Amino acid sequence: MSDQQLPPNIKIVEVGPRDGLQNEVAFVPTSTKIELIRRLLNAGVTHIEAAAFVSPKWVPQMADGAQVLREIGRRDGVSFSALVPNLKGLDAALEAGCDEVAVFAAASETFSQRNINCSIVESIDRFAPVIEKARREGVRVRGYVSCVLGCPFEGEIDPLRVASVTAHLYRMGCYEISLGDTIGTGTPLKARRMIEACTKHVPVSALAGHFHDTWGMATANVYAALQSGVATFDSSVSGIGGCPYSPGATGNVATEDVVYLCHELGLHTGVDLSALMEAGEFISTSLMRSSSSRVARAMAARHARRVS
Amino acid sequence: MSDQQLPPNIKIVEVGPRDGLQNEVAFVPTSTKIELIRRLLNAGVTHIEAAAFVSPKWVPQMADGAQVLREIGRRDGVSFSALVPNLKGLDAALEAGCDEVAVFAAASETFSQRNINCSIVESIDRFAPVIEKARREGVRVRGYVSCVLGCPFEGEIDPLRVASVTAHLYRMGCYEISLGDTIGTGTPLKARRMIEACTKHVPVSALAGHFHDTWGMATANVYAALQSGVATFDSSVSGIGGCPYSPGATGNVATEDVVYLCHELGLHTGVDLSALMEAGEFISTSLMRSSSSRVARAMAARHARRVS
Repeated sequence: MSDQQLPPNIKIVEVGPRDGLQNEVAFVPTSTKIELIRRLLNAGVTHIEAAAFVSPKWVPQMADGAQVLREIGRRDGVSFSALVPNLKGLDAALEAGCDEVAVFAAASETFSQRNINCSIVESIDRFAPVIEKARREGVRVRGYVSCVLGCPFEGEIDPLRVASVTAHLYRMGCYEISLGDTIGTGTPLKARRMIEACTKHVPVSALAGHFHDTWGMATANVYAALQSGVATFDSSVSGIGGCPYSPGATGNVATEDVVYLCHELGLHTGVDLSALMEAGEFISTSLMRSSSSRVARAMAARHARRVS
Repeated sequence: MSDQQLPPNIKIVEVGPRDGLQNEVAFVPTSTKIELIRRLLNAGVTHIEAAAFVSPKWVPQMADGAQVLREIGRRDGVSFSALVPNLKGLDAALEAGCDEVAVFAAASETFSQRNINCSIVESIDRFAPVIEKARREGVRVRGYVSCVLGCPFEGEIDPLRVASVTAHLYRMGCYEISLGDTIGTGTPLKARRMIEACTKHVPVSALAGHFHDTWGMATANVYAALQSGVATFDSSVSGIGGCPYSPGATGNVATEDVVYLCHELGLHTGVDLSALMEAGEFISTSLMRSSSSRVARAMAARHARRVS
């Protein structure tokens, strides 16, 4: 089996507090955001996307990012990141004490225009001074590429286009590129071809898989990406969130599901699944909805049977 | 990539009309069962588990099996099967004109006792005359093995135990053995190890994967099984059904999800996904519930956006 070559240590990047909560229509209290992050830390999560320094006019949910980061404080061995669209956002992130920042590009021209109102190459040009300044300040920069396995407007996306944007961001100084299946239509072979197109230009250790479970393919894609050597995965506790500009594209894969899969594959994540599920239960309850994590739901059903 | 060796032609065994509907508490009208099967045939499904000839005292939902099969009639190129626990059931299946029958064993001693009230070896002994007679009558016999990746009572199941039951059924004359992850806790590496334990004794072409999506792992497991050479998969349209004796183990993987995955992997199933989704919509509507198929739900959301 080729699987014996799976990367033994997996880095989980928890995006729930930003990517997840960002789409909530009702404002989530700052204290809830902080408590969620505390619980994630308690579960052993070491990479947390905690805020976005974007215009509060556009994303009011993220207006309290600085306060969240300040109250949590920096932690040894933990990296807090924030999404920044421009230098102004970067300055706010630096002031808030972020360990890293993230910039956001797309592999689809149409999606780029509709999401951030400029072409792909324009978006990369805009990020150049952000990446330069962040690096001068000793803050690492992560790049997101969306629509890597399909676009809601263009349909199929050529892996070479993904590889091109990925290589560009990497050369400009992003230490890690997160490859996002924004609409969740991706499947294992296409995921592997896309990843392998990228690894012709960027080391696989600099790639992260960011899969959505909208079409039920996320765990299959994680497994396929592992087989291509990817060892970093973005996920959202309890499966909260999606993409506000991609209608219907709810469905960040749940962190619980990725962690369960990795542990069952014998891989090390450093995350305590029970404590993680408590964090998921906390945020699901706070948002007054049931968890989107299949593992959390199966575990809850099992527990309910034992109690009854 | 090892994936280039995936089997190009996939056999889908639709178990919805039996395994799916069997768990419905309210009696599903015979006309609904027939219409479901007609729609599945219309979608190009060629293997359908249509009935169970078990005591109607135990499974009243399946009491109309003979009528369903009679009204559908035999079809060229289509195989209708029925579950039979004993010679009496086999005789009823033969009279109803089944193309094949299925017998049901477990890889877990405790599950076997609780499900069919006898040990594994006793259950296999009981099937011996059933398999012999079916073969004399020119009817093929399929074997089910449940709990191949975990048991609700025993936990982990040794792949060697699965291989032993599988080899036994194969030697007795079952042409195909369906390996069931009854509780849905299975993950890709364990699935492959279990399958590869079986292929030491039985050709991979005689194995079928029967995965449940309870823990969100079904598509990952299908992909892993494909990588081990398995080319036959059981699934249930709209994800209906589960196991009545395994509490909470709802979650047959939806046929729509398996077909979508296979087609996107470039594999041939002979099934028309659009027509299949119409069959799924028909049965979901009839049962007054939403589809458990992630693909059907994502497609419906996409369609709703286009219409609005």
